[in-house]
Amino acid sequence: MVLSGMQRAVRWHPPAYDIRVEDVPIPQIVEPDDAILAGLCGSDLHIYRGHEDVHDVLVCGHEMVGEVVALGSNFHPKAAGRPPLYSTLKLGDKVVSPFTISCGECHFCRIGFTCRCVHSCLFGIPTLPGGQAQYARIPKAGGTLFSISALPISSPNNADLSQLADCSLLLLADILPTGVFAALQALQHPKLSPMLTRSAYPSSGFIPESLIVGAGSESAALQHKDRQLTLAIVGLGPVGVCAAVSLLDMLAGLESKEGINYRVVAIDPVESRRKKMEAIYTIISKKETSSSRKFSVSSIEDGKRIIGDWTDDVGCNAVLEVVGNPSALTLAYELVRPFGLISSVGVHQEPAMPFTGRELYDKNVSFDFGRCPVRAMFPTALDILLKRQDIFGDVGGEANLVEKVVGLDEAAESYELFDKGKCGKILFNPWK
Amino acid sequence: MVLSGMQRAVRWHPPAYDIRVEDVPIPQIVEPDDAILAGLCGSDLHIYRGHEDVHDVLVCGHEMVGEVVALGSNFHPKAAGRPPLYSTLKLGDKVVSPFTISCGECHFCRIGFTCRCVHSCLFGIPTLPGGQAQYARIPKAGGTLFSISALPISSPNNADLSQLADCSLLLLADILPTGVFAALQALQHPKLSPMLTRSAYPSSGFIPESLIVGAGSESAALQHKDRQLTLAIVGLGPVGVCAAVSLLDMLAGLESKEGINYRVVAIDPVESRRKKMEAIYTIISKKETSSSRKFSVSSIEDGKRIIGDWTDDVGCNAVLEVVGNPSALTLAYELVRPFGLISSVGVHQEPAMPFTGRELYDKNVSFDFGRCPVRAMFPTALDILLKRQDIFGDVGGEANLVEKVVGLDEAAESYELFDKGKCGKILFNPWK
Repeated sequence: MVLSGMQRAVRWHPPAYDIRVEDVPIPQIVEPDDAILAGLCGSDLHIYRGHEDVHDVLVCGHEMVGEVVALGSNFHPKAAGRPPLYSTLKLGDKVVSPFTISCGECHFCRIGFTCRCVHSCLFGIPTLPGGQAQYARIPKAGGTLFSISALPISSPNNADLSQLADCSLLLLADILPTGVFAALQALQHPKLSPMLTRSAYPSSGFIPESLIVGAGSESAALQHKDRQLTLAIVGLGPVGVCAAVSLLDMLAGLESKEGINYRVVAIDPVESRRKKMEAIYTIISKKETSSSRKFSVSSIEDGKRIIGDWTDDVGCNAVLEVVGNPSALTLAYELVRPFGLISSVGVHQEPAMPFTGRELYDKNVSFDFGRCPVRAMFPTALDILLKRQDIFGDVGGEANLVEKVVGLDEAAESYELFDKGKCGKILFNPWK
Repeated sequence: MVLSGMQRAVRWHPPAYDIRVEDVPIPQIVEPDDAILAGLCGSDLHIYRGHEDVHDVLVCGHEMVGEVVALGSNFHPKAAGRPPLYSTLKLGDKVVSPFTISCGECHFCRIGFTCRCVHSCLFGIPTLPGGQAQYARIPKAGGTLFSISALPISSPNNADLSQLADCSLLLLADILPTGVFAALQALQHPKLSPMLTRSAYPSSGFIPESLIVGAGSESAALQHKDRQLTLAIVGLGPVGVCAAVSLLDMLAGLESKEGINYRVVAIDPVESRRKKMEAIYTIISKKETSSSRKFSVSSIEDGKRIIGDWTDDVGCNAVLEVVGNPSALTLAYELVRPFGLISSVGVHQEPAMPFTGRELYDKNVSFDFGRCPVRAMFPTALDILLKRQDIFGDVGGEANLVEKVVGLDEAAESYELFDKGKCGKILFNPWK
């Protein structure tokens, strides 16, 4: 298939809030590791608002799902020196693209920190056009693209992945894996280990037990009530909702396997976002009963009060920060208990960290910052996507994350509505 | 034994740098959980320099070792409602006191975060006199004091603990456990898990494997070189040296048990501190060979260069920050790689965190801040103390941490020398 000529694309113009649909050349294979994708793409506010210090026109969009329509020469079966990921991708494959390039073969890719690949680059910047166009060029496509058609992992629950709607698969490009990452960072942290392992800090975790002598042997025994987890999510935008769904799924697993009791407060000042979260929780709670779970969707002030009430003012074991500004971090600090964790996946900008050194020392607080390594989270995110098709499988319902799918002509209006909180997440179908 | 009358004590007078040896009343049992300790105490610069926002005269000293000379009524065998720790402590016991009170029975004590006990209080403040006196009152003594005489943990290597010199035991009150804590936080963090577990992020760690689906299954296999750990220690004061010794001990264990390769740079701008570290490393390297270990004691600029050379400018997997000011944190950030950890045990003060949100997001950096839970680290620290009597067992040698033991009359002069970096750690023996 030879692609040539022009295509329609959503382009952002600096300095901010200026979206135009324009004709641009159809992208071509440039490097032998490239693929060309035809598909659809999610909306993205970071660039739109001019927060990213970008000064050139660009094709928007960092979340893509679609079909492979062209492949570079390195995908030829006889191409030498390419890792296995480059031999499994085929023309016609249904694929999901994470929002950054990852080669699949550097040290960072090998160890699973795929978003910090040495070739990492965000889609939707001037030098790497995004997905809000009919076609997009995907560099290092063997490492970057997930092929749903040829999934190298076994399909969870033997689900028929080919039946998954594009609007559902698109959630795997960023927001669901990022939600999984936020939840996983919290539950995996050694400071939550006493609650999970039933033994006092320090447990050994990833290091051999023999490196830690007699851990916890002197303390009074852990009591059942010590094993109660209290968590908060700050920010209920689309990623925050995915973080809440992922966290609830993992906590349900910890309850059934480990006898953990848990309580979660999901906090956002915007009522429409709280209503979405409540509609989603209604679905979850109907299907999944729990003897211990408490869940509250709250405004900021109510959230503080509830956590205070639940914990005798001790605070949360962990707070998932899914906003990306100093006031969200300040709230997270206020909500977290001594020796608690703040799992921050919000995309933070230039403002300084709003903490004194003494505040951090005095609370023994831990932080995990940064971008989700989407590929590393993909298997777990796919599992949750399949389990929760009642939420993630459709568009436009009160419990669905994606509000609507529109053609490119509606791009400018859609961005404005999304930015102003007047609609939820929107997908662009450039073929509509 | 009835204690009464006056004793000599080292007292600090506000606002800073004013040390006087004065007569104060011998402390009395006030609460039924109290003990009175007679012993010796380490020097401490935090209060001395006026950094702690204290405005009243106080008895100095937060590191104590000694003998129990009086016990409150709750240590009576028939006292009801006290946890087991309160029945093992006896008059005449040789004990070490961590630098904060911990009751041994609240939630934080039960789960091992003993320095954030609900009764936590630092020794050496106006309301809780420190140990630089002949006698000190220890509240919640059953939870707070480690009895060496009646160690409830099994003695590592069947060592005769009664033979340990007081100057050696005193290191257990703060600096050695804090060094162990700094090292352990680094090695235990999930972001180091790929190197330790041989499988890509995310590994399950403390949570059941079934909660994470197909982790790392898509990536290229980990290579031997992926498992190389590069770490740095920023700050080679007494705690930094203990952190280095602890880290080297744990890494040697990881090399022999897990085949990890490792490299460590220990950084301090002060030449006398580097010389101490070098003398200590000479002893370690003579006794313990390693096929992979590289170790360098460096100035700041040399340290940056060496880490750049060793890692092709990728940076350290983890940095132990043992200073407690913004420039040390800035250096730690500069040295750490994407998805790396900063284990900060420095006692930070009022200055704000020197990072923008973007810097933290862009590097996927993690932080663990705060005070060491000494009791939780005690068994591991005791193990290292016994292994490393060649360093920790004596006073005044070029490879010993404690430079000298002096009487209280030399307090003012000793503080001044220690503050100016003209001598190392000093112990005060009020009976001399």
